[in-house]
Amino acid sequence: MKIALDAMGGDHAPAVTVEGAIEAVRKSKELSVILVGNEKAISEELKGKKYPHLLIKIKHASQVVEMGESPVTAIRRKKDSSIRIAVDLVKSGQADAVVSAGNSGVVMATALFLLGKIPGIQRPAIAAVMPTLKGLFILVDAGANVDCKASHLFQFAIMGNSYARSIFNINSPKTGLLSIGEEDVKGNELTKEVFKLLKESDINFVGNVEGKDVFAGEADVVVCDGFVGNIALKISEGLAEAIAKMLKREVSKNIRGKMSYFFLKDVLKNFKKKTDYSEYGGAPLLGLSKPCIISHGRSTAKAIKNAILIAGEVYKKKVIEIIRDEFSDENSKPVIHMERKVAVKK
Amino acid sequence: MKIALDAMGGDHAPAVTVEGAIEAVRKSKELSVILVGNEKAISEELKGKKYPHLLIKIKHASQVVEMGESPVTAIRRKKDSSIRIAVDLVKSGQADAVVSAGNSGVVMATALFLLGKIPGIQRPAIAAVMPTLKGLFILVDAGANVDCKASHLFQFAIMGNSYARSIFNINSPKTGLLSIGEEDVKGNELTKEVFKLLKESDINFVGNVEGKDVFAGEADVVVCDGFVGNIALKISEGLAEAIAKMLKREVSKNIRGKMSYFFLKDVLKNFKKKTDYSEYGGAPLLGLSKPCIISHGRSTAKAIKNAILIAGEVYKKKVIEIIRDEFSDENSKPVIHMERKVAVKK
Repeated sequence: MKIALDAMGGDHAPAVTVEGAIEAVRKSKELSVILVGNEKAISEELKGKKYPHLLIKIKHASQVVEMGESPVTAIRRKKDSSIRIAVDLVKSGQADAVVSAGNSGVVMATALFLLGKIPGIQRPAIAAVMPTLKGLFILVDAGANVDCKASHLFQFAIMGNSYARSIFNINSPKTGLLSIGEEDVKGNELTKEVFKLLKESDINFVGNVEGKDVFAGEADVVVCDGFVGNIALKISEGLAEAIAKMLKREVSKNIRGKMSYFFLKDVLKNFKKKTDYSEYGGAPLLGLSKPCIISHGRSTAKAIKNAILIAGEVYKKKVIEIIRDEFSDENSKPVIHMERKVAVKK
Repeated sequence: MKIALDAMGGDHAPAVTVEGAIEAVRKSKELSVILVGNEKAISEELKGKKYPHLLIKIKHASQVVEMGESPVTAIRRKKDSSIRIAVDLVKSGQADAVVSAGNSGVVMATALFLLGKIPGIQRPAIAAVMPTLKGLFILVDAGANVDCKASHLFQFAIMGNSYARSIFNINSPKTGLLSIGEEDVKGNELTKEVFKLLKESDINFVGNVEGKDVFAGEADVVVCDGFVGNIALKISEGLAEAIAKMLKREVSKNIRGKMSYFFLKDVLKNFKKKTDYSEYGGAPLLGLSKPCIISHGRSTAKAIKNAILIAGEVYKKKVIEIIRDEFSDENSKPVIHMERKVAVKK
C-alpha cells in the first residue's frame, strides 16, 4: 500500500514527518510512503539516515500551507502545496491513502474538493480514537462540522459503526449520544432529535452518554457534532497533559516523592501510553471516496508513524467500501435502509 | 449567615448532607444550617452525633423530588418538597442562601420561579470552578442553559467576571471563549457572534481558548453555552476519575509498582485534592436575586461542606449585589454600559 504523506504538515515538519515515515515502513512490510513537499528540505532530513530506499520516495511540491490560512484562500492560491499534491496522488491512483498533520481545515476542504464524498453522505466527519478503562472508543465527529443538523449526526453514527466494525472488529458497536444527563429527555434541541433517529434505527443505541460513561467504556462509538466533539477531545488532551505535569511536580516535591519515582517509572510510562494522543496518531475523515487521515498539528514522529499505519489499515480493511455499501441503494436490508433514508434525507 | 440545605438532595442523602452540615458549622464560626427535609430521617442521622445544637436546625418537608422528575411536574405537584421549602426559606428571608445536591433541573426551575432573576439578566447560569496547573478557572455556563443566544453568553461573561472578582479576588479576570482553535475566526455560528461582543466590550478578553489553554491557566473565566460547558465539565470529571483508576491499576500490577505506592501515597493524595470535584463542592446559579448553590448528585459529605462554605462566601462577599450593580441603569460607566446594553438587548 502506498501512503502519500504531507511531509510539510505539522509544527515540527519535515523533521518528524520524515522520521515518522521511516518508522512506519520499518514497522509494516506492506507499506511504502511518498513524502510530499520541498524536495531539498526532505532530502536534507533523509540524508545520513538508514532507511529502505525502495519504500520511501519524494514528490516535490513548491508551496506550503500555513496554520492560520483559510481553506478558500489555500485552495484558490496554493495549487502546488504539499497538501494538494498529496491528495492529488490519491485522486490519480498513484497513492492509496493520504496523511497530513497540516492545517486541518485546509486538508479537509482539499480532500473534499478533490476526492469528493461517497454518494448519500451529507458531511464527512472525523473519527478520533480515545482511551477508556476497558479499551477505546471512537468519537465522531471530532471536529469537521461545527454546525450540524440531526441527519448529519445520524450519518456520523452509521459511519462510526462501519469504522468500529472494520478496524476494531467490534461486531455490533454500542453507540452512545454525547449529551448532558443519561435520561432520554436530556440534551439540547439537536441531540433530542438525534436521539429519536438513533432509537428508531437498527444501530445498537445505548442512549445518552456523559463523561463518566465514555471513559468507563460504556460505548464503542460516541456521536456528537464537530464543535462539541472537538471540545471534548481537546479538553481530554489538555487535562491528561495537565495531570501528568501535576503528578511530575508532586513527585519532585520531596525525598519521598523522588524515591517513588524510581519505582514509578514503568507505571508512568504505561499510563502515558494509555492517555497519549500520539499513540492513536491520526483520525480518518470518514465519508470521503478515498482514505484521508488527519493528524494533530503537534504530531511527534511516533504520531506520524501511527497515522501512516492507520491509513494503511483503513485502505486494507476497505472502510470506504463498507461505508459506501451502507449508503448504497442496493442495500440488502430494505426496512433498515428505508428508515435510514428517512433520516438521511431529512 | 444562615444556609438552607436540601437535606434530601443527592445520591447519599440524608446521611452525607447531615454530615456535611456538621462539618461546615465546625469549619466556619459564622455559619448556621437549616436542614430541610423529612424530620424523622434527619433526626435519625443526627442522633448520637456531636454537633453544636444551636447552629443546626431542622425544617420539616414532607416530599422529596426524585432524580428523574421533570421540573414542571415537580413545581406543580410537590409544593412541600425539601427543594421548594429550602428555597422558600431564602425567599422569606429566614435563610441567606440555599444549597441542594438534588435534581438540578428542579432546583434551578424552583429557584428561578420563587426567587426570580436580577433585572436585566436573561438567563441565570451555573459557574463551576475547575483546577488548572496554576490555580483554577471558572466555567460559565456549566449546564443551566442548553440552547443559547450570543447575548446570553455575553451576560455569562459579565456574571463570571463578577464572581471571579468578588470570591477569588481577581482584579481584571482574563476571560476566554471556549472554542475549537485559538484563531479569531474559529468556532461555530454562536461563538463567532459572542467573540465580536466580547472583543468590543470592556471585559479583559483573551480570545478563543481550547482544552490545553484552560488547564494551563490561560483564562480565569471561560465562557460557553450550558450544553458545551456541561460536557466539558463531565468529560473532565470522567477522565480525572479514569486516570486515577488507571494509575491505581498500574501501581498494583507488580512488586515494583506496589513498592512505589508506599512513597507515592502523599503524591496521590495531593493529586486527588487538585482534581477532585468535591473540593469545590458546589456551583452558584448566577443571575438569581438570592444565592443558590447547585451541588453534584454524587456529593460526599466533604462536597456538601464545601458547598455550604461557598454559599456563605457568595452571601458575605455580596456577589448578587455586585451582579445587580453591573446590570443596573445607574451604572457609573455609561459607555461600557451602553455597549453592554446593545449586547444584552440583542
